[in-house]
Amino acid sequence: MKKEEKLTPSLPKGFRDRWGKELALKKNIIKIIEANFIKYGFLPLETSPMEITSNIGSFLAEDESNPMSDVFTFEDSKESLTLRYDMSAPLARFVAQNYRDLTFPFKRYAYGDVFRREKPDSARYRSFMQFDADIVGNVSEAQADGEICNIIADTFKSCGLNNNQFSVNVSNRKIIQGIVSELKIKKTQEERVIRAIDKMDRLGLDGVKNILQDGRKDESGAFIKGANLTSEQANTILNFIQIKDISELKKSIKNSLSKEGIDELSKLFDILSKGKFFDLIKINLNIVRGLAYYSGFCVETNLNFNVKNSKGKEIDIGSCASGGRYNSLIKRFKGVDFKGTGMSIGVDRLVFALNQINQIDFNNKNVLVLVLDEKYLDNYYSIVNLLRENNINSEIYLDPSKNLKKQLAYADKKGCSLAIICGQKEIEKNSITIKNLKSKNENNQITISKENLINEISKLQ
Amino acid sequence: MKKEEKLTPSLPKGFRDRWGKELALKKNIIKIIEANFIKYGFLPLETSPMEITSNIGSFLAEDESNPMSDVFTFEDSKESLTLRYDMSAPLARFVAQNYRDLTFPFKRYAYGDVFRREKPDSARYRSFMQFDADIVGNVSEAQADGEICNIIADTFKSCGLNNNQFSVNVSNRKIIQGIVSELKIKKTQEERVIRAIDKMDRLGLDGVKNILQDGRKDESGAFIKGANLTSEQANTILNFIQIKDISELKKSIKNSLSKEGIDELSKLFDILSKGKFFDLIKINLNIVRGLAYYSGFCVETNLNFNVKNSKGKEIDIGSCASGGRYNSLIKRFKGVDFKGTGMSIGVDRLVFALNQINQIDFNNKNVLVLVLDEKYLDNYYSIVNLLRENNINSEIYLDPSKNLKKQLAYADKKGCSLAIICGQKEIEKNSITIKNLKSKNENNQITISKENLINEISKLQ
Repeated sequence: MKKEEKLTPSLPKGFRDRWGKELALKKNIIKIIEANFIKYGFLPLETSPMEITSNIGSFLAEDESNPMSDVFTFEDSKESLTLRYDMSAPLARFVAQNYRDLTFPFKRYAYGDVFRREKPDSARYRSFMQFDADIVGNVSEAQADGEICNIIADTFKSCGLNNNQFSVNVSNRKIIQGIVSELKIKKTQEERVIRAIDKMDRLGLDGVKNILQDGRKDESGAFIKGANLTSEQANTILNFIQIKDISELKKSIKNSLSKEGIDELSKLFDILSKGKFFDLIKINLNIVRGLAYYSGFCVETNLNFNVKNSKGKEIDIGSCASGGRYNSLIKRFKGVDFKGTGMSIGVDRLVFALNQINQIDFNNKNVLVLVLDEKYLDNYYSIVNLLRENNINSEIYLDPSKNLKKQLAYADKKGCSLAIICGQKEIEKNSITIKNLKSKNENNQITISKENLINEISKLQ
Repeated sequence: MKKEEKLTPSLPKGFRDRWGKELALKKNIIKIIEANFIKYGFLPLETSPMEITSNIGSFLAEDESNPMSDVFTFEDSKESLTLRYDMSAPLARFVAQNYRDLTFPFKRYAYGDVFRREKPDSARYRSFMQFDADIVGNVSEAQADGEICNIIADTFKSCGLNNNQFSVNVSNRKIIQGIVSELKIKKTQEERVIRAIDKMDRLGLDGVKNILQDGRKDESGAFIKGANLTSEQANTILNFIQIKDISELKKSIKNSLSKEGIDELSKLFDILSKGKFFDLIKINLNIVRGLAYYSGFCVETNLNFNVKNSKGKEIDIGSCASGGRYNSLIKRFKGVDFKGTGMSIGVDRLVFALNQINQIDFNNKNVLVLVLDEKYLDNYYSIVNLLRENNINSEIYLDPSKNLKKQLAYADKKGCSLAIICGQKEIEKNSITIKNLKSKNENNQITISKENLINEISKLQ
């Protein structure tokens, strides 16, 4: 191969690799989430990473004029295929296809990478991991929605967060939808109003007021179209979504759709009061979720500590676990009518934040068997065989030509906890020297008889 | 939505969903593989699910005239993106990009779905999971290749297979390459000869002889072009690849490349003799691997029990863990020259086979709290709260309108182990009735005081 033909290694924009401490944390978090979901009686489901494009639906993108613009689609000879965009659309398709073989209420969890063909920027990736829990079936909505709220709170606590570090914010979309129709806002503007409210966290009251009325320029200079409400309509909505108390809501609202939403919210909080996480779950009416398929209960989960980007600038990381009730999503398919509720944890986002507060401890418990002389390989292999038989993570250094210092540098860089050092002296006496790599004492080596190896290592790790 | 607009739920051809027992087995197998790889000192790496197309390389497809025909590629505005095809090409790109920050020898494991734009058929999927372990770095090749063989054997044993149920077959590609040039076979035909030998398991001696010479029709009626060898050339190769013994190989071979291969194989078996799995690892010279980048050591892992397809017909499932040494793959990138060795477990294939021999036990240890009357919801929630606090997988039935029989049918279908039944009598006495759903005795219920709940459940599970 000629020199000029060689490749330059790089990644496509919007994608990344993970390794080292960040990946160790991510794997730990996935394990915690999964154990929690199983604890709540959810069972796993793995759907295909690609779906038939028409089944993914047109409810996805924010750009209403071009709804399928942010999916990755392949045109095959006879089919159009789309990469997984979220976990909800595949769940709906799966339930519609297999409902005869499922047990209802169908409680499933699922996780995997989802793909968005968005314009990538420093904080926006084109693939990221979602970890979802959903309950499908026509059951007590308050109980099912309550289970979703409790599982979020329990999971975030299991990830090491305390009660002050996050809050689960709950709303019911019917409340704001009722207000919108009470205010005689046109049906065509309704989704725009909902999406404006959804941006409250990012834009604040004034920003949202702008896009409820005439629109505004965003930071990039692009113009976001407004919903053309009157100032009075916008104020009514904004005053209203700041109410945090159910009895106050009941007093201020008269239309029947909003009342239905308030009633549902009230029943949900009654169920939540029986659980362990009542104090962590708050009413917040500006939670409306951007996706059109949510029909009532909505939930978002916010972190209450500062998160910085790679340049050290404080950023709004947004909701780390979001979802809601979707009573019409599954009946888009023929012959089925199941209600559903669920939520999705943005795993990479959560890991990014947790990585900054360092509350989870990692310890690479790995033993390196050093190779002092190739002629002792038999001895070294018998040690590593013994360690592995006892489920002790261990490896033999793979290059006998490297000196001890280089081998120890490998152990150090990799974060190994112990090194096994056996030279002629040890081998003659059938003994083994163990060096504690995590200890800063000068006296960090012991020489033991080979029979005691497993015991001594268990003590040291 | 009008009725005729409703969607028909289905999956694109070549893709599938997994759930229930098969997925439980798969998750279990993944856990076993991961624990084994960690035990051997490998650390995780997660590369991007998409790569820049030109980095994926042209060594992939079997169709030499159209090397990129079996990848899924998206043309974006400025880049061409390709979905992960295997774990080796991303590893090569990752090492070339990040070698300054890595510890060498770099031992990483990785798993995830890979995508092949092949013509799907009943046994050929367009996405499947690979679980890889690789060692990158210029180290003792025999030690590193030996580690790969040992980890395969250890992992397959950990998956519940005994010594008679699988074998790890090892070869060295240089041996056959040396023969090919000794026989004065043209360079252009060499890959074709290698690929013909690779098909030995599937086609047998006669089938391979056909494609070494004039070609043959496969079952679908498609014609596979031959390598145009003379009958004598073909016989020399076929006689030779049946040799299973290193000293016999040494006797029969004179060319230097083959000798180099035999010498490497001999050193590898010397290392393997120091390990625990020597008896499971065999020489088999028809292992040559289809991919062009393998440079010496090659390995495949075959199951020695019958596997049937969904129609009950016995099938050749092929190798479940394959790999080899690739000393020139990474130096396709600028400025780096690292050797590598590794292997890939075909997780879905392995799970498909293991699912048929039922050697791994599953027990859904899940407690269902029945709802006898909505007015006792407080009590039921306090029970489920207590169970979950004690990490007992449990759920409360979500629909108070369903009768006891329906709730128990749910528990049964889902495979719950225990049901908690508390009616007025229990609640008045602060007691709890536990029904053992796995017991066929009539006497499968006990009533206990609430304080003993956790103890009793631990005893029963």
